[in-house]
Amino acid sequence: MLAYSTLEKLFHRRSVLSEGAAILHWDNAVMMPDGGAESRAEQLATLGTVIHELITGSEVSDLLDKAEEETGELDEWQKANLREMRNAWRHDNAVEADLVEAMSRATSKCEMTWRQAREDSDFSLLQDELTEIVKLSRQIARAKSDVLGLSDYDALLDQFEPGCRSAEIDILFDDLGTFLPSFLEEVLEKQAKSGSFEHPEGPFDRSLQRDLGEGFMTALTFDFNRGRLDTSHHPFTGGTPDDVRLTTRYEDGDFTQSLMGTLHETGHALYEQNLPVKWRNQPVGRSRGMAIHESQSLLVEMQLSRSPEFLSYALPLIRKAFKGEGANWTDDNLMRLYHHVEKGFIRVDADEATYPLHVILRYRLEKALLSGDLAVSDLPGAWNKGMQELLGITPPNDKLGCLQDIHWPGGAIGYFPTYTMGALAAAQLFAEARQAIPDFATSIRSGEFEPLMTWLRTNIHQFGSLKSTNELMQDATGSVLKTDAFKNHLKKRYLED
Amino acid sequence: MLAYSTLEKLFHRRSVLSEGAAILHWDNAVMMPDGGAESRAEQLATLGTVIHELITGSEVSDLLDKAEEETGELDEWQKANLREMRNAWRHDNAVEADLVEAMSRATSKCEMTWRQAREDSDFSLLQDELTEIVKLSRQIARAKSDVLGLSDYDALLDQFEPGCRSAEIDILFDDLGTFLPSFLEEVLEKQAKSGSFEHPEGPFDRSLQRDLGEGFMTALTFDFNRGRLDTSHHPFTGGTPDDVRLTTRYEDGDFTQSLMGTLHETGHALYEQNLPVKWRNQPVGRSRGMAIHESQSLLVEMQLSRSPEFLSYALPLIRKAFKGEGANWTDDNLMRLYHHVEKGFIRVDADEATYPLHVILRYRLEKALLSGDLAVSDLPGAWNKGMQELLGITPPNDKLGCLQDIHWPGGAIGYFPTYTMGALAAAQLFAEARQAIPDFATSIRSGEFEPLMTWLRTNIHQFGSLKSTNELMQDATGSVLKTDAFKNHLKKRYLED
Repeated sequence: MLAYSTLEKLFHRRSVLSEGAAILHWDNAVMMPDGGAESRAEQLATLGTVIHELITGSEVSDLLDKAEEETGELDEWQKANLREMRNAWRHDNAVEADLVEAMSRATSKCEMTWRQAREDSDFSLLQDELTEIVKLSRQIARAKSDVLGLSDYDALLDQFEPGCRSAEIDILFDDLGTFLPSFLEEVLEKQAKSGSFEHPEGPFDRSLQRDLGEGFMTALTFDFNRGRLDTSHHPFTGGTPDDVRLTTRYEDGDFTQSLMGTLHETGHALYEQNLPVKWRNQPVGRSRGMAIHESQSLLVEMQLSRSPEFLSYALPLIRKAFKGEGANWTDDNLMRLYHHVEKGFIRVDADEATYPLHVILRYRLEKALLSGDLAVSDLPGAWNKGMQELLGITPPNDKLGCLQDIHWPGGAIGYFPTYTMGALAAAQLFAEARQAIPDFATSIRSGEFEPLMTWLRTNIHQFGSLKSTNELMQDATGSVLKTDAFKNHLKKRYLED
Repeated sequence: MLAYSTLEKLFHRRSVLSEGAAILHWDNAVMMPDGGAESRAEQLATLGTVIHELITGSEVSDLLDKAEEETGELDEWQKANLREMRNAWRHDNAVEADLVEAMSRATSKCEMTWRQAREDSDFSLLQDELTEIVKLSRQIARAKSDVLGLSDYDALLDQFEPGCRSAEIDILFDDLGTFLPSFLEEVLEKQAKSGSFEHPEGPFDRSLQRDLGEGFMTALTFDFNRGRLDTSHHPFTGGTPDDVRLTTRYEDGDFTQSLMGTLHETGHALYEQNLPVKWRNQPVGRSRGMAIHESQSLLVEMQLSRSPEFLSYALPLIRKAFKGEGANWTDDNLMRLYHHVEKGFIRVDADEATYPLHVILRYRLEKALLSGDLAVSDLPGAWNKGMQELLGITPPNDKLGCLQDIHWPGGAIGYFPTYTMGALAAAQLFAEARQAIPDFATSIRSGEFEPLMTWLRTNIHQFGSLKSTNELMQDATGSVLKTDAFKNHLKKRYLED
């Protein structure tokens, strides 16, 4: 038997256990009563250790070496699978099991504390536990940077966006940082002239909001036989490719939050549901990385769902669902609502024009936290200062400031930049799809999404991790990831239309 | 370090992983979309193998041998813990990992098939998969019987009710088999004379049913910070001691089903929530066995909740919840409803007087299935014949017959007798509590359950697996498990009151 085949069995087992852990993580955020937190943290930590130990034994190192001498006998997918195995092994093997377990325990605990701290808008509740997370992240980054030959930050970034380096991000973000401020002023000026919008008046029954969201999910080809929609503090997509668990959150007074949250997560979910079945439970069968993942959610939420074509299909359904009548429910008013640009405090509520500035702030701060240039105790101040610099506004409290996101309490330093890379990729892919698909506008206006989904499956989903992010982009759009399409999109939507 | 201490660490890890699996099993029954079934089966099977392998290595055998020479240095709880470890080791070590994994996969699959077969009332859908379960059960029983020096059936029974042998069950069941038939005739005769009841007319809003159930759970001291109530095809209690997941099922036309289901599972849940925290995640900290577990659920559902004292507290609340008025809602009518005896098809809907006959049927059938005296293909016929013999009625279809229970599809042969042992224990414990607690009737009538719960915690819950079932009964009631209290209870409730 090929060493490669033995590795496939081993990585299959690793994937199966990871998927069990993914469901436990979903349950943690969606179902679990508070009293279960400590035990759940221990369950996830112990399972994490078992998973970690599966591929860190010396025999796995030998198998990888051997398999890499067998590549003449492997096809293209198998070779890519082996490459992904080696990459996973490098990441896992760099870090001691004790450190992995300590991080798992710390993040489970810290996520629970974060919920309370956020609710109470009290950073002091979180400070010690977050300090511990940053400390552990630094230890992990140090361990990985040695093995991977990367900087500390890039070693963490590589976990979420394999192959990506901060040097590449710096170029993209510098370009956006130059473009966005003056663009934003133009948009706000135009918006001030053309008049504001009125929020449709609630309350909006939550089950109606949910039904509406599920209706759009179904139209977008989400398969409810292989997934669920639930509620959590912070919307996310988890679970497994044949049991995708997405969540949103509901506001009685504003249906747009839950709806756009649902549409965003649906983009993630469709990527998972359409990954190559043949490579299920193998590294190459997984989603490429978080930039492409986020491109799928933003393509649905920002590019598709806020397009005039989609809105002309969706607004009548929304009005019908809530029995909306009158001035606040006209196409014109709702279109203004969905295209409204505003300097706000909350990243997940931000429009697509200001969103990158939120990300740039977090990117700067997390690099500083990791390097030690910024102490956790100084985070609230640095956050507020950064908000003032980038967006010209200062959060009145930490709930609207540095307590809004679960990422750092969850140990995900190096994740934030992928949001904006995803936004760039979404614009680039959508522009290409729009050109490539015949009668695109007509099909969207009539709520027919199969052509778009087929294009995404064909160009992105079906490849799993076969290609790199930039190979996917190059092959699908003729260019690696750039800012052009995103900037063109913003200019068209906010200055021209 | 003592070998015993090393074992504690190992068994702790085993327990933590088992608790993760328990949540995945709950999710499987309550949340998971059908499309996730195959993957979930694989997750549970793989996790089962990991758990199995934890204590089946040769070093664990050595550690147990060593620890058993250290007992001079162990206290009472540690000694009992070591005894429980040895027992778990014997069970796990008797069976090859492959067989454990095969059984886990087969039961996950078969449980899903059972849902469909039950819905369609089509035994042919289930036959092949159930045959496989019986075959695997036989292999497991054979492997264990060799090691434990028990008969095949007793080897399986010992998994659910450690130390119990079918010889003991035969004596108890023979006694009930003698008592019940003539008793039943007397009851039915008396009931016919005193007049029947009318069902309160529905429909009953499911969320009101749920709220009512949760209200009773809270009154009975269930801690919602450490547990949840949900819905599933077949009510059960799962999860972990600090995250107890109980389920019930709702009928629009009959609130009594969901309510009594909830009260039953609450009895199980309270046992779990009150297990000794100090011994959490150790074998001795677990519940004693299924007979005692069932005694706790039946004590709440049958002994307490249908007592005149409880009903005088509960009926006004029930009327209020559903705005019940008129003849069908009088104390008298509802009391008759809750004390109604009837020869029915469904075990979980059976009253306490006919219930043991359902169990005796299953006990006979599962022994015959295991020995091979009964082929799975002959099960529907044998079931119907047994129902006719024991209860004098024949199910019109398999949904009301041999497809009603998940136990065999779930691989739980040897489980059923513990239901009736639990009923006997419940009666014996409740009779003792009633005598021991001052002003018992008054406290129940006023919805004050803390004295009863304190008595149960003190006499049962706090001991975990320190004592054997019969030691628990002896110390709590002055006698090992007998039929006397149960028979006295039935006579008093159904012939005297």
